[in-house]
Amino acid sequence: MHLDIGNALAGIARPGVSRDSLDRLDDCVARAHERIERGVEEREFGYAALALPETTAAAEIERAVAPLADSEAVLTVGIGGSALGAATVSAALGRGDADAYVLDNVDPRRANELLAALPLSETAVHVVSRSGTTAETLANFLVVREAMADAGVDWTERTVVTTGEDGPLRALADEHGLPALDVPEGVPGRFSVLSSVGLVPAAIQGHDLDGLLAGGRAGMDALAPSLYECPAYGYGAACHALEVRGATTNVLMPYAERLEYFAEWFAQLWAESLGKDGLGQTPVRALGATDQHSQLQLYRAGRRDKHVTLVRPRERPERAIPETGIEGLSYLGGSDLGTLLDAEFEATEASLAAAGLPNVRIEIDALDAESLGRLLYDAEAACVLAGELMGVSTFTQPAVEWGKRAARGLLGGGDFEEAEAVAGKERLVIE
Amino acid sequence: MHLDIGNALAGIARPGVSRDSLDRLDDCVARAHERIERGVEEREFGYAALALPETTAAAEIERAVAPLADSEAVLTVGIGGSALGAATVSAALGRGDADAYVLDNVDPRRANELLAALPLSETAVHVVSRSGTTAETLANFLVVREAMADAGVDWTERTVVTTGEDGPLRALADEHGLPALDVPEGVPGRFSVLSSVGLVPAAIQGHDLDGLLAGGRAGMDALAPSLYECPAYGYGAACHALEVRGATTNVLMPYAERLEYFAEWFAQLWAESLGKDGLGQTPVRALGATDQHSQLQLYRAGRRDKHVTLVRPRERPERAIPETGIEGLSYLGGSDLGTLLDAEFEATEASLAAAGLPNVRIEIDALDAESLGRLLYDAEAACVLAGELMGVSTFTQPAVEWGKRAARGLLGGGDFEEAEAVAGKERLVIE
Repeated sequence: MHLDIGNALAGIARPGVSRDSLDRLDDCVARAHERIERGVEEREFGYAALALPETTAAAEIERAVAPLADSEAVLTVGIGGSALGAATVSAALGRGDADAYVLDNVDPRRANELLAALPLSETAVHVVSRSGTTAETLANFLVVREAMADAGVDWTERTVVTTGEDGPLRALADEHGLPALDVPEGVPGRFSVLSSVGLVPAAIQGHDLDGLLAGGRAGMDALAPSLYECPAYGYGAACHALEVRGATTNVLMPYAERLEYFAEWFAQLWAESLGKDGLGQTPVRALGATDQHSQLQLYRAGRRDKHVTLVRPRERPERAIPETGIEGLSYLGGSDLGTLLDAEFEATEASLAAAGLPNVRIEIDALDAESLGRLLYDAEAACVLAGELMGVSTFTQPAVEWGKRAARGLLGGGDFEEAEAVAGKERLVIE
Repeated sequence: MHLDIGNALAGIARPGVSRDSLDRLDDCVARAHERIERGVEEREFGYAALALPETTAAAEIERAVAPLADSEAVLTVGIGGSALGAATVSAALGRGDADAYVLDNVDPRRANELLAALPLSETAVHVVSRSGTTAETLANFLVVREAMADAGVDWTERTVVTTGEDGPLRALADEHGLPALDVPEGVPGRFSVLSSVGLVPAAIQGHDLDGLLAGGRAGMDALAPSLYECPAYGYGAACHALEVRGATTNVLMPYAERLEYFAEWFAQLWAESLGKDGLGQTPVRALGATDQHSQLQLYRAGRRDKHVTLVRPRERPERAIPETGIEGLSYLGGSDLGTLLDAEFEATEASLAAAGLPNVRIEIDALDAESLGRLLYDAEAACVLAGELMGVSTFTQPAVEWGKRAARGLLGGGDFEEAEAVAGKERLVIE
């Protein structure tokens, strides 16, 4: 991963961080690195995620999905950290040998449409839930299983499960002899992309799991006790420094359609890990060049409470723009869509700097397995570092429990006082 | 549109707005309404958008696309306001008689994949650019035109154009006798969804344009000089009141997959219209229930700088969750995915209120043409009102010009000093 934080410096941007401040922050980075290194070595809760490139066994995943290797489609049934990693990898690396779909919502319209469109007898289903009780995931799985049965497909031959040591999904896998993989110990869902949670669909698609893990390992090897020597820490430290100086929003703007899901994945990683104690940058998902025509006005002329992270691959496939005699367009003809997109990238970066808005450039060599594995790992390491610098509980998500209990209560799944609060809603209706 | 701002009140939320403050603000709303009404009547620049339900001729659009009515697919070639409206309508109303695609980026990989997958001889192409010179749109059009020619398809028989009175696209339409529609006078792109700009693909898909415009007209008829009597103004006033009290981020979170693009469209409307003079809420696109497992931790436990706008249709199709004997899941069996989704909606709304985070509920009757037209119109009217209350130049987007000139200069399209700034970038590289 190649990082350039020049446009986040105090001389360029407001808020911005001076080189002196970065030097001082680097002492904290060194100490945080020691803490992270110890956590990784001892496989402590959360930190264990940064060991996945070494602990994940690609061969085991490939063996588990071997019976499904001829599938035309692979459907991930999960939600949040149990779905976004897989979706990110599949979107970034392309179709491969199978189309990838995700059922990560409980919208009946979407379920009906997707199940009507899928070639069920040729579809592999990957059900992911650590507890085996996640309401959305299990409801969707029950629906998918029934649709397969209705279509005369033996769902037990088309399903692979990734779950914890016990719980309903584990019991189901045991009962029906389904291939079952483990959610790795001590790894929160949003940090689990480089495990079976994120890699099963990629394996069915025939993508290069070893390459993904090698990229992750390169990120692991690059961790160092200085933000100047480690792009992951450089990014995490820059985000932290900008946040405490007022950039409370972090816009992640990849210039590659295949990285649109990466921005979603990053948004979960950042929001759920760092959104605590009244702190945490709000991640905003954008896409270049498209959002130049939608969001750039706000970034340049709105509040000084943001920084933009621009991401691009250094290599792109070719697509020539045909020569044209149309008046005023001849400068486009003979160029290439990739050249145009890169010009837009550089123009937008410069336009943000010209407006004094801090921005950061991340580049990867190409949209391949190894570069992607590195990008994912480095984003996780950046997040862990930012959490250390802020002193928050990076690996938990206590604030989401309230709503889960309320929903369960509303559905008759037990007595929960949170469900009673729903009925007491204050109303001011205008219609 | 049904609006409930009870959870934005000061007793519930921080920031929150008291009923007294709303009463005082209502005087400003009454004055702003007069200004808006005059602008609409006189078809002033920008305000003319709020007259579209009366000025758009559905029959003219349907006549223009009649030769393409048997298309299997419709491809919008545009960007920003020339693409998002069409994409929003097509996504919300579903496939109809043709699959809808958008080419609104210049990623060569995406263009290559899409053009390889499209049935070109059965694809209608809608090219949209007011000036007829938008670099991304014209580059994509040149690429699509060539792909059709290479496939032996007569592109002149498959293309419809929406553009301004003159410019390269108008000239091209004249030269080749293409059906050509007008971008409506005085209507910025992001406010143009209820015109040919947004409705051509829907017409080819066989959707109910009259219903969409009737919904818009209902919104127009509902404009009134009080926030308590007009849900559009109620929403715009609530957002304004929350913004000046500290909610500088507006999370739009529909609970319906088909409204995911609506959140994109809204984000452009809000950011480009109100992001001025160091003001303007940052729109954040979310999706319920999925993002409960991604963003909710931040919303409930992060900075008090946000409010959440929850959106849902009151009707959903059915999809029963099968009964199950699996331990711990019996409460789900026999329910319906829609019931589950609505329970999650209400639980999340209550969980935000319990954490003191302001939130607003918007409901539409159903995902049909009339309700959608009303929703789009009301969002625009809310935005115009918020702009009046803030005193910004709602209908312009001056801050995006810098980058356009820089990109054009980089591509050899003329001498622009902005292009020189790109080469002078400050660097601090870490790799």
